[in-house]
Amino acid sequence: MPSSRPSDADPVGLPTIDAVRAAAERIKGKAVLTPLLESPMLNRRLGGRLLVKAEPLQRTGSFKFRGAYNTLVQFLERQRRGGVVTYSSGNHAQGIAAAAEMLGIPATIVMPADAPAVKVANTKGYGAEVVPYDRYTESREAVGQKIAAERGATIVAPYDEPHVIAGQGTTGLEIAAQARAAGAKLDAVIVCCGGGGLTAGTALAISAECPGTALYCAEPRDFDDTRRSLLAGERQSNDPKARSICDALLAPTPGILTFAINRRLLAGGFAVSDTEVQQAMAVAFAELKLVVEPGGAVALASVLAGKYPITGKTVAVVASGGNVDRETYTAALARS
Amino acid sequence: MPSSRPSDADPVGLPTIDAVRAAAERIKGKAVLTPLLESPMLNRRLGGRLLVKAEPLQRTGSFKFRGAYNTLVQFLERQRRGGVVTYSSGNHAQGIAAAAEMLGIPATIVMPADAPAVKVANTKGYGAEVVPYDRYTESREAVGQKIAAERGATIVAPYDEPHVIAGQGTTGLEIAAQARAAGAKLDAVIVCCGGGGLTAGTALAISAECPGTALYCAEPRDFDDTRRSLLAGERQSNDPKARSICDALLAPTPGILTFAINRRLLAGGFAVSDTEVQQAMAVAFAELKLVVEPGGAVALASVLAGKYPITGKTVAVVASGGNVDRETYTAALARS
Repeated sequence: MPSSRPSDADPVGLPTIDAVRAAAERIKGKAVLTPLLESPMLNRRLGGRLLVKAEPLQRTGSFKFRGAYNTLVQFLERQRRGGVVTYSSGNHAQGIAAAAEMLGIPATIVMPADAPAVKVANTKGYGAEVVPYDRYTESREAVGQKIAAERGATIVAPYDEPHVIAGQGTTGLEIAAQARAAGAKLDAVIVCCGGGGLTAGTALAISAECPGTALYCAEPRDFDDTRRSLLAGERQSNDPKARSICDALLAPTPGILTFAINRRLLAGGFAVSDTEVQQAMAVAFAELKLVVEPGGAVALASVLAGKYPITGKTVAVVASGGNVDRETYTAALARS
Repeated sequence: MPSSRPSDADPVGLPTIDAVRAAAERIKGKAVLTPLLESPMLNRRLGGRLLVKAEPLQRTGSFKFRGAYNTLVQFLERQRRGGVVTYSSGNHAQGIAAAAEMLGIPATIVMPADAPAVKVANTKGYGAEVVPYDRYTESREAVGQKIAAERGATIVAPYDEPHVIAGQGTTGLEIAAQARAAGAKLDAVIVCCGGGGLTAGTALAISAECPGTALYCAEPRDFDDTRRSLLAGERQSNDPKARSICDALLAPTPGILTFAINRRLLAGGFAVSDTEVQQAMAVAFAELKLVVEPGGAVALASVLAGKYPITGKTVAVVASGGNVDRETYTAALARS
């Protein structure tokens, strides 16, 4: 670990491996212990061993449930009564809504008025109240804070929260244990990265459980803020005009907590194009029988597109979610 | 168990639950222990608890690997040297080819000359020799027997083989253990049925492990030979002119061994239309993130289409495979 200069001073409250281990105990029997998939056919083609952590099979269809549950289950009694507020148009919304329902905590999700109907319906399906906002004229954070203040509710942000990061890190603990059980010594782990919560949590787990394993983030091209931030040594932002089909990974800049962890533990990052993402979704369909959403496929894409050649190596990638509409999915399959 | 009349006399060599348990030991670490998936959203919609055994995640993309490996691993030394011959245009071909490769046994698969290129390529990908035959002028059994005689090879038929049935039954043992771990007491188990090997093996396992659980087969409409055979008390055939998108389930009549088991242990069967199958594939996509092929979706379809209402009940269905081309899959998603 590099010594800290004053400008590198860590923010307070960074989660540790102990927090990840405690989270694993909390989510046990609540979250799905998702399988670590492997295709002998794909291994042959790649000339290496590729293990795919199948988070589309997680409750709510993405890893987000892990961090959501780990956070809400630690709410104090008055926080439970006051409820939870968050903002998200997608996977975090569903993760929070489902966890809140299981724990009997009222949940309010601030969602864009033009969010996909299916995501709104799913979130409501878990019993959450959905408050629409105009994404062109309103700030979702401001809307959320207003509601939280009025109701005495607690905000749980999508990634820059210690308990959320620790919860997502259980993905890494499972990868380590499952790789061991499969007789696989991991040369590298590659994680899909938006705000960096899953990446940071997984990095905490893998660096503790599998010392010597290289850690990388994978991002959509033009949303490679974490990759560039790692190179620059400080947080970089994305061009507000950038676009990608990876709707789950469009955070404008790395989180403060997540980047403080990732800059210490990551070896670097990879950026993939939307076409490479679609091809990875098609490979997951054909070889793994797993439905993966665009943002969930960037780590797999980085291997398939040769950004990280795995010849002779053993590599685990996280497929982080599978919440994709059929039109987007069909378009991706047409790329194969 | 009903007493046997002479005309009901069982064929010799029927596998027992002990054979299924022995198979489970043999395939351990070779086959994937596939997850038993569950969607809280889907449960809510159905008003019951639905557990889905995810065999698309099995090695080679279907349950067929289980029976193939359990059979080939018991080959005597001279059988290993002589190699294995089978006939199949799809999942059994891949199961045998993959198991043979793992065990170093030469494999020859008799496949229709007009079989889908992807299935031929996959089978060859596991190192098997593919021998084409003309499905309109030649008998695949005759072609297979000729090759076996010439090469001193052993034929492993797709379902009416004791070791194959026992191997497929490991699916049922896993369902029983996983349901128990999930705190689920199974009211019924519904299995996709072609020749009946998976159904018979699973029935052996479930009737031993979960007494009181009702067992049903699910079949494509017009290929409901096992359902009708159960009602008639003897093996019935399908109309040779019948057609279905469920290419994995087009056996003309129940197997002799499989039906001898199924008539004792099954409570009945359900038949579903191709449209109901497509709708089930679309639900598996949206709610389970699992790619299921048409033939692998009939059991799920029987529940979703209300053939077996599960209100207030806990039911496990087997999703038996996921080897489907993208055109067929895309057409199914368009049904949702």
